[in-house]
Amino acid sequence: MTKLHPNQQVVEAEGHLIDSNILPQIFDRVIENGGSYEVENFTIGRTNDEVSRLKLRVAAPTPELLTELLEHLVPLGCHPRSEQDVRLRPAEADRVVPDDFYSTTNMRTLVRYGGAWIEVADQRMDAVIVLEGGVASCRKLRDVRKGEMVVCGTEGVRIVPVFKDRDRKAFSFMANEVSSERRVETAVKKTAALVREVKDRNGRVVVVAGPVIVHTGAGPDFSALLRGGFVDALLSGNALAVHDIEQALYGTSLGVSYETGVPVEEGHKNHMRAINAVNRAGSIAEAVKSGVVTSGVMADCVRCGVPFVLAGSIRDDGPLPDTLMDLIEAQAKYAEHLRSADLVIMLSTMLHSIGVGNMLPAWVRTICVDINPAVVTKLSDRGSAQAIGIVTDVGLFVHLLARELVPVSA
Amino acid sequence: MTKLHPNQQVVEAEGHLIDSNILPQIFDRVIENGGSYEVENFTIGRTNDEVSRLKLRVAAPTPELLTELLEHLVPLGCHPRSEQDVRLRPAEADRVVPDDFYSTTNMRTLVRYGGAWIEVADQRMDAVIVLEGGVASCRKLRDVRKGEMVVCGTEGVRIVPVFKDRDRKAFSFMANEVSSERRVETAVKKTAALVREVKDRNGRVVVVAGPVIVHTGAGPDFSALLRGGFVDALLSGNALAVHDIEQALYGTSLGVSYETGVPVEEGHKNHMRAINAVNRAGSIAEAVKSGVVTSGVMADCVRCGVPFVLAGSIRDDGPLPDTLMDLIEAQAKYAEHLRSADLVIMLSTMLHSIGVGNMLPAWVRTICVDINPAVVTKLSDRGSAQAIGIVTDVGLFVHLLARELVPVSA
Amino acid sequence: MTKLHPNQQVVEAEGHLIDSNILPQIFDRVIENGGSYEVENFTIGRTNDEVSRLKLRVAAPTPELLTELLEHLVPLGCHPRSEQDVRLRPAEADRVVPDDFYSTTNMRTLVRYGGAWIEVADQRMDAVIVLEGGVASCRKLRDVRKGEMVVCGTEGVRIVPVFKDRDRKAFSFMANEVSSERRVETAVKKTAALVREVKDRNGRVVVVAGPVIVHTGAGPDFSALLRGGFVDALLSGNALAVHDIEQALYGTSLGVSYETGVPVEEGHKNHMRAINAVNRAGSIAEAVKSGVVTSGVMADCVRCGVPFVLAGSIRDDGPLPDTLMDLIEAQAKYAEHLRSADLVIMLSTMLHSIGVGNMLPAWVRTICVDINPAVVTKLSDRGSAQAIGIVTDVGLFVHLLARELVPVSA
Amino acid sequence: MTKLHPNQQVVEAEGHLIDSNILPQIFDRVIENGGSYEVENFTIGRTNDEVSRLKLRVAAPTPELLTELLEHLVPLGCHPRSEQDVRLRPAEADRVVPDDFYSTTNMRTLVRYGGAWIEVADQRMDAVIVLEGGVASCRKLRDVRKGEMVVCGTEGVRIVPVFKDRDRKAFSFMANEVSSERRVETAVKKTAALVREVKDRNGRVVVVAGPVIVHTGAGPDFSALLRGGFVDALLSGNALAVHDIEQALYGTSLGVSYETGVPVEEGHKNHMRAINAVNRAGSIAEAVKSGVVTSGVMADCVRCGVPFVLAGSIRDDGPLPDTLMDLIEAQAKYAEHLRSADLVIMLSTMLHSIGVGNMLPAWVRTICVDINPAVVTKLSDRGSAQAIGIVTDVGLFVHLLARELVPVSA
Repeated sequence: MTKLHPNQQVVEAEGHLIDSNILPQIFDRVIENGGSYEVENFTIGRTNDEVSRLKLRVAAPTPELLTELLEHLVPLGCHPRSEQDVRLRPAEADRVVPDDFYSTTNMRTLVRYGGAWIEVADQRMDAVIVLEGGVASCRKLRDVRKGEMVVCGTEGVRIVPVFKDRDRKAFSFMANEVSSERRVETAVKKTAALVREVKDRNGRVVVVAGPVIVHTGAGPDFSALLRGGFVDALLSGNALAVHDIEQALYGTSLGVSYETGVPVEEGHKNHMRAINAVNRAGSIAEAVKSGVVTSGVMADCVRCGVPFVLAGSIRDDGPLPDTLMDLIEAQAKYAEHLRSADLVIMLSTMLHSIGVGNMLPAWVRTICVDINPAVVTKLSDRGSAQAIGIVTDVGLFVHLLARELVPVSA
Repeated sequence: MTKLHPNQQVVEAEGHLIDSNILPQIFDRVIENGGSYEVENFTIGRTNDEVSRLKLRVAAPTPELLTELLEHLVPLGCHPRSEQDVRLRPAEADRVVPDDFYSTTNMRTLVRYGGAWIEVADQRMDAVIVLEGGVASCRKLRDVRKGEMVVCGTEGVRIVPVFKDRDRKAFSFMANEVSSERRVETAVKKTAALVREVKDRNGRVVVVAGPVIVHTGAGPDFSALLRGGFVDALLSGNALAVHDIEQALYGTSLGVSYETGVPVEEGHKNHMRAINAVNRAGSIAEAVKSGVVTSGVMADCVRCGVPFVLAGSIRDDGPLPDTLMDLIEAQAKYAEHLRSADLVIMLSTMLHSIGVGNMLPAWVRTICVDINPAVVTKLSDRGSAQAIGIVTDVGLFVHLLARELVPVSA
Repeated sequence: MTKLHPNQQVVEAEGHLIDSNILPQIFDRVIENGGSYEVENFTIGRTNDEVSRLKLRVAAPTPELLTELLEHLVPLGCHPRSEQDVRLRPAEADRVVPDDFYSTTNMRTLVRYGGAWIEVADQRMDAVIVLEGGVASCRKLRDVRKGEMVVCGTEGVRIVPVFKDRDRKAFSFMANEVSSERRVETAVKKTAALVREVKDRNGRVVVVAGPVIVHTGAGPDFSALLRGGFVDALLSGNALAVHDIEQALYGTSLGVSYETGVPVEEGHKNHMRAINAVNRAGSIAEAVKSGVVTSGVMADCVRCGVPFVLAGSIRDDGPLPDTLMDLIEAQAKYAEHLRSADLVIMLSTMLHSIGVGNMLPAWVRTICVDINPAVVTKLSDRGSAQAIGIVTDVGLFVHLLARELVPVSA
Repeated sequence: MTKLHPNQQVVEAEGHLIDSNILPQIFDRVIENGGSYEVENFTIGRTNDEVSRLKLRVAAPTPELLTELLEHLVPLGCHPRSEQDVRLRPAEADRVVPDDFYSTTNMRTLVRYGGAWIEVADQRMDAVIVLEGGVASCRKLRDVRKGEMVVCGTEGVRIVPVFKDRDRKAFSFMANEVSSERRVETAVKKTAALVREVKDRNGRVVVVAGPVIVHTGAGPDFSALLRGGFVDALLSGNALAVHDIEQALYGTSLGVSYETGVPVEEGHKNHMRAINAVNRAGSIAEAVKSGVVTSGVMADCVRCGVPFVLAGSIRDDGPLPDTLMDLIEAQAKYAEHLRSADLVIMLSTMLHSIGVGNMLPAWVRTICVDINPAVVTKLSDRGSAQAIGIVTDVGLFVHLLARELVPVSA
């Protein structure tokens, strides 16, 4: 082994580096960051099952730039050959960490501590890693407290990229594609199969949904899914609940498309009346139990014991007493329900779906359905092989999904 | 005067009923709601300046349906011929009002009390009207307190619709049109003229802006507007401030389009570092004053004394210490700055712009600029002749606007 | 009756001038064109069924501007009180008409000739009117021959605007609205009812369709409609036929979305093989008859005797021998099938649908279905109360429509 | 060398297989087509400049499937180790070739004939290769004549993929990205630099443009580019010319957006008058020479001797006498001007740009500008590192480009 110049470092990576397009990304980032590379060794996976192994010498103009360059390689699974423990430094104040703190990705992360590799808990992106009592976990910056030991730099940090799952045949036709010109029926069948597979092994299905499911008349179909036990939690905002209850009480729903820009009538009495009725009861659950609200998605959530979280937004009227206008609390509740999710289905709500995407580790399967291809691309393209996008009418999708999973109901 | 059947009522309306398409809407709503009508008298405005006057007998199958039908005619300026005082009833609990409460529109509203017509203060849509000490004002449902006297039904309520302003030549080419195939330079010139007109009479210009102004490199242009005194308040969210400060500190900005679905890299260290730096300083203002942040839109807001409000959202990372994650507080702060606004310019942020739209009375001029025509249609179509939509590249728009208003700077 | 100044004219109009928003448009156009008006008399339709009558004195700064102004009022049904025959002047050469020729709208048009009002045949927009042997008909400019007598100016021309059909309850919920947040099932049921109504009175249903119906897997559903006798002609382009036959022969279809921008693989052998196979047979009909192509939409057109027209475009590969690359011929064939159409259904093809829209009189009912709201708005907004837009997944729409109309088949 | 099973074949490839993501595509296509592979040898390019070399054994269940699989590998640059001449077979009739004909991609192609590799002329996608007198060239299927010798199968065919040009810094920030949230000024500057670079070496710049450049008021800017000698040919349709001449003659342009769905007024006299005027003159060139048309884009084309081709479409009114309604002729004229193009700029016309894209070899640089991100993605994603997409207001883009290239003019 030759002695390395201080501007150089040898990193290693292994896995499906070719299939998952990781190798060219490694090369790209070296060049983009002003460095150069030389492949010391590369063993290609000779068949579809074998992994590849890379040993790469990278160089940068200065040691500082080398450090920065190495930071960009960590998310791609590159790690120094010579292993060291992570560098820990204390947070100088609540919410304030050292400048060279390690900022997480959404991929599985290991840190080396006391010579052993330990997996980081609560994986999510844009967090810091705190080590406490031999346990490493992701912590949102705002939750860091003075004196907590925070991982800094990239030594002793290793990422396990999500490799592309080429052989899995379900959805293979849709992988990396977003198109309305596709057999939606096939996508529905495969979504149903995935839901069943998750439920058969007692997994958890979390749905993030916007008010469109009510406006399109798919409320009863969604209720059938709730009653069938296919939904373990519903994450949404004020609007879904308001319009669902408006529909239950007065037979109308706002019926206005944020996407298509249909003119908003001035003033919408019925949705305000719905909020007033729930205010009087005290909460959605009380309104259902006292018989004020007898049908709809929210009523079925209450009756079936499916927990829901309604996160507030700056545009909310009312809101309902159940809507969390404190977003710190809303994010915490969302995260709690997502912690053990096996499958997340996102139905026509870009705002809440982005929020959910930020909280999820890369390996949780997500299916994103929206009539707007730009939204689907945005949400399904989280650098993860696990995200599938379907461009179609969300009302019809939910209708067909219910017919597939709960045949008698629809 | 013939005696009226209990299922009948005579209403009157006056104003530019033809030009503003109000007359056909009145007829439509009668028919849509299952009623019938007979025009008792109609005097047409014989020239462009004269108003028209309508006396209309409406009938419905039952007195209850008549009441409902009349509710739908109020926002169009229809009022019963025979004048009565408003009906007031007490709120039965905090946040709970009688079922027949009057739900406001965003149009100028008068209530008759003690035989006199008084104008309702703080006009906004989806509120209730509270009368207290002879003063009527819009109150958000959540702010109503037990025992407060709330306007119920529609008697004694009169709306003054915003009539179409046909003769005003500024923007007339754009009125009711949303198109990218237009001379944007003309729109910029007219926007500049409007801003100058407002500032010349010491009016207030409020800007609602998204992070696109930073990502497109229009930050320095926006700063020129701030320094030129053309912006009286900036309403935004966490992202604009984070990416502006990231730009100021590290020369990068996330550069990712929510609209176009460009893939998000996993993990974005620099924006987290920016938040950490502001956390350390304590606030954006402190970070500017202590010399940590020396350039950018936020720095110029602080230096020029332009107040800003950053409303949180479920998707926010961090957030910055200045970002209001309590949306009740955020809505209150937004509303405070909008109270006396004469012109509101909305730049590429649908979420915050809808929030602002909900708070504004119909007569405040708004200009909405976005590259996505659906967003512009949605925001500029608030049933108001005062909203103008411009479909163009927002970065270029801000650049050209700065060059127009602050020639030396750009 | 007062004597009129040469810069003034009195025009009259009658009909549902209020309900159809025609009256404010009349006023707008006078003002926009620099004129002024005075209502001499206006009798409002007192009930929903009664028509209104207007007598309006308009004035312009010069007689020339008055002429121009009056031209703008003709499409709104305004006509001079004093009736005159049309002014006819000969075409000076093939394709060349006098400068003051009358350019048609898509609305029903009458011309006064020899003191009698005669209806213009082959109504379409952007044509000229030729009078020949007492018969008036629309003629495309390119078809005008030297010496033919062409209507000039606006005297003796009268338009019958399409008035809004408020009482017709079918689709009333969708009228003037374009939204994906709607019960698509309801729209499907109403479309089916309309198709049945047309077929029950031996009317003709023409479908304009793009390749999406093949890519989405809705081909068999569309075939069921063909076999059920619900389609009288299919107007399309090269792509639908190529991909349908590719599907029939090789089980693949290009599967690429023009809307969503999914990357096009370089080279697409199967669609070229499909074209080669049809070239060998001589035509699509021959390929079906000789057993080369045994299934698919085109095969069912041939077997059911449903005529089809494939119009070429600059982007066409091949094309198939049936594709008309001479657009003069293609437009003529399209127009021929549209001449007696009672209902036109447009499925996901903006290019061909605009072409069709240009050829149709305003009173032919059209239903436009597309997943892109901008396309639906564009196509359904032809100034006609007869156009209905539905934003949804076109594959699912066709699937559900077939299930509704041909229950056993789907 | 081991003897190969008939279901197996060894292929080789070389070049920047990693950087250009070609290696994973090779593996993907083997698996997708039901085959398996074993890497016999892989030599990685050790630095950014070195190429990689692959020797891959592929296997399929049957010899027929192996043949099909090999066809899918050819476009990725894979070729059998053992070299053979191409297989030539005669066309059985005009427009009809053997079933196993080789269908071209848009990448540089070589065929082995008489033991030597010769480059295929007139490279474009979806053509066949004809060998005649030792010369190989792409031939559109419709132009093949009976008896011509056509390349069949894949033996003796070799593709040179376009490798990613990582070091080229111009536009590197935009490569593979489509976003409106970008400094458009930077994109304009780089476009200008590219245009200058091409013109400095006497290269040819071809512009494909839609009517938006007229509607946005960028006509004079485009004229400045014409007069500055920066445009060598203009490819467009009927609408650009009609509205440009309408603007020149009457000061109006249709002003209607296909993208945004702004309502079309019924009937548009001025554009029909413009067509009539050109009909009278005989052609656009005659109308300019005779002084009928004195300004505008078309007039400047005529005066500067810049050739233009106007391709017809099914939606065209009129059309102008210059518009080619015979699309065979239109495609031929387009192809003629594109033959030696060095840079193609596509401005807001999806239809014509797709047509152009089909005719271009992969190595011609193209810049696509549109306000709709879906269009840009579609057009710039032709599997080529040479296509660059810019999402912005096209009118402003042309304005800024003219100011950059022809400073005095704008």
